[in-house]
Amino acid sequence: MEPRLPRGMRDILPEQMMLRRYVIRSFEEIFEAYGFEPLQTPALELRETLMGKYGSDAEKLIYDARHREGKEELSLRYDLSVPLARVVAMYPNLPRPFKRYQIAPVWRAERPQKGRYREFYQCDADIVGTSSMAADAEIISLIHEALTRLGFRNFVILLNDRKLLTGLGRYSGVPEPLLGSLYRAIDKFDRLGLEGVREEMRRYGIPEEAIARMLDLLQIEGDHTEILGELSRRMQAAEIPEGLEGIRELETLLRFVEAMGVPSERYRISFTMVRGLEYYTGPIFETVVTEPRIGSITGGGRYDGLVGLFARQSVPMTGTSFGIERIIDVIQELGMAPPDLPRTPVQILVTVFDEPRMGASIALAQAFRRAGLKAMLYFEPRRLEAQLRYAHQKGIPFVAILGPDEEARGVVTVRDMGSGEQRTLPPEEAARWIRQSLGGKGDGR
Amino acid sequence: MEPRLPRGMRDILPEQMMLRRYVIRSFEEIFEAYGFEPLQTPALELRETLMGKYGSDAEKLIYDARHREGKEELSLRYDLSVPLARVVAMYPNLPRPFKRYQIAPVWRAERPQKGRYREFYQCDADIVGTSSMAADAEIISLIHEALTRLGFRNFVILLNDRKLLTGLGRYSGVPEPLLGSLYRAIDKFDRLGLEGVREEMRRYGIPEEAIARMLDLLQIEGDHTEILGELSRRMQAAEIPEGLEGIRELETLLRFVEAMGVPSERYRISFTMVRGLEYYTGPIFETVVTEPRIGSITGGGRYDGLVGLFARQSVPMTGTSFGIERIIDVIQELGMAPPDLPRTPVQILVTVFDEPRMGASIALAQAFRRAGLKAMLYFEPRRLEAQLRYAHQKGIPFVAILGPDEEARGVVTVRDMGSGEQRTLPPEEAARWIRQSLGGKGDGR
Repeated sequence: MEPRLPRGMRDILPEQMMLRRYVIRSFEEIFEAYGFEPLQTPALELRETLMGKYGSDAEKLIYDARHREGKEELSLRYDLSVPLARVVAMYPNLPRPFKRYQIAPVWRAERPQKGRYREFYQCDADIVGTSSMAADAEIISLIHEALTRLGFRNFVILLNDRKLLTGLGRYSGVPEPLLGSLYRAIDKFDRLGLEGVREEMRRYGIPEEAIARMLDLLQIEGDHTEILGELSRRMQAAEIPEGLEGIRELETLLRFVEAMGVPSERYRISFTMVRGLEYYTGPIFETVVTEPRIGSITGGGRYDGLVGLFARQSVPMTGTSFGIERIIDVIQELGMAPPDLPRTPVQILVTVFDEPRMGASIALAQAFRRAGLKAMLYFEPRRLEAQLRYAHQKGIPFVAILGPDEEARGVVTVRDMGSGEQRTLPPEEAARWIRQSLGGKGDGR
Repeated sequence: MEPRLPRGMRDILPEQMMLRRYVIRSFEEIFEAYGFEPLQTPALELRETLMGKYGSDAEKLIYDARHREGKEELSLRYDLSVPLARVVAMYPNLPRPFKRYQIAPVWRAERPQKGRYREFYQCDADIVGTSSMAADAEIISLIHEALTRLGFRNFVILLNDRKLLTGLGRYSGVPEPLLGSLYRAIDKFDRLGLEGVREEMRRYGIPEEAIARMLDLLQIEGDHTEILGELSRRMQAAEIPEGLEGIRELETLLRFVEAMGVPSERYRISFTMVRGLEYYTGPIFETVVTEPRIGSITGGGRYDGLVGLFARQSVPMTGTSFGIERIIDVIQELGMAPPDLPRTPVQILVTVFDEPRMGASIALAQAFRRAGLKAMLYFEPRRLEAQLRYAHQKGIPFVAILGPDEEARGVVTVRDMGSGEQRTLPPEEAARWIRQSLGGKGDGR
């Protein structure tokens, strides 16, 4: 039988795992610094838990699962937000605010393409149980800090508000059934520009007058305060309460983001940023990397209605998802990983001189482990060159050689594979030298 | 819609996650100290990759998966060994020896019962590409160290060998088709005793003479050397090369386990330990906890034939699986976790006095984070008692109070929730006090 992977699936071999783990651990640390706690939910959910939440196009991509005698209709989770809402509904006594993060795989049967897989990790942080814009502001600050720590420099967090978007739609006078098309059109503003969006709106059959009013709104200029002030005047004049409520949310959000100390060049209000998922209800956030142009790497917002699909209560929630697979790829492609991130956890390879000395090499590897080193035994008494080549191939920084001469003298010869330097020392001193040499070098944990 | 979990599935809430993570991190550290590297494989494999490897009873428990337009027959992985064999066959250029560990969920549709779930983590360490018994010895030493580090005291690693079992069968003269029943019967030796096993064998239709010869073998007494010596004499006399080969393997294994410094009370040869999976080919290992009697918590062995099911090459492999879910349960039930393992990663809750002071509390939480603390803001200006109760409920060790008085003086009042001690200090000094108080206390990472 040919060993094969399913379409769109992949293995992560050890060398890539080192980078992956560095990124995941960085996220875990920053999430916990912000007071988020880890949560684990099962990969399989009842099909009905997932259906009706994402829209029918998305739901076509869900994997169903079943065992031979199973009566339940099961599906593999499509994201981590709906399982979170299920958890919140199921355990009403969880103390709130409840801040959880989850970094775990989800499955979507999308057409496979370069860098896109059908099993991929999502990395989410959400705050449950408060309507305070301070929670949304924390999410913005969290995004800023997490990306900065990972080495991202040129990014902007775009802010908008679903209530405001509803207000904009009503203000422009677009007929209700065309609202979805309106948002789809203005979402393309950055790519198509003003005229492009105008054409797009015409194509969707939006009346000229509505188009004009809408594009007029999008052209308001100034700083945050000026823009929101002008919008607020217009919404007031047109008596559109949702719009005013959205503006108030954004104003409060901005005030709190400032209190958190997020640098002002890191966030910007963008009325043309429209996030697809229907369940958002308040502020929405999206991070765009401007240089290099790699598009959006976080997405999120407030979704106060989701728990209501499972329980008779409405529970406010806000949060963000980090595009962790994309982030890992970019860090790899642009060489943004710490220079001392090793290719393997192994720090020293203990070679085997010949079969009779296997026991001595075994004991030496154990002595290194007891001295706090990550040590590996080669197992086979092959030629020394082959064993050295193995260490080189895998990026193991030190090699220990224990021949008859060393054994007789109670010492070991250790070679630094980077510098080529070689020392012959008693095992404890050798371990000390290796620890010192590795000293500054982190091990990516 | 009622929020529900599928049958046999569960959520792991944050407090349980802290213990779980402590156990997982302990395993990761010890695996890496032994030179194992992390590997990740997808949850979904081609159905044909899994089928025909586990036996038909097991294969009934496999979950199949499919998406609406998918043509491939997919299944959720049933263990981590078969995916490893697939990886080894798919990437023939992976440098060997290849030592990998994987701690990840698998899915089996077993009848749910207390402490048994249909999604559970497996925790495996395997060594690929060497036939040396030094590799098997490392697995024994790894089991000893991992369990000892986690606080297990009364356990024994049972050793046996598949070749020797084959030899025992041939020696006893049991007809070929009854060999499986023979092993099933002697596997019950510890539970049923000599007479019980005799009855069991009769029930399976094993001839009296074969039963007598078999039970005679099982009663050989003495230390390892004596037992293996006596067995060896009998196998030699009966001219059973597999038996002799198995004995040689065990002798070499024992020599290397000794070289690794594993205490002799930690392992024992047991001819009646028979591991179920058909793919083992050499030494097999199983760890039994004797006090309290919680049964077996690791299982493994050498399986040189598994890769051959995927590739035209045969690749030697050996390894073990730790029953990590059982281990976590036992650590919890017996209170074996480190006493300083926190119930939450959060170290300080910053309360909110009133809405106008929200900005000041936000800034204070940020200042604590910059000072290296894991800080959480309460978000809502509820009564202080409610906020303190929240901290108490969640086990957050410190609470910061920032009222008008503190704000005017540029200080903060910090309460140690454990001792009740309270100090009013500038934020940086408060952070220093908290860090010192937490000092010795690990955070389970």
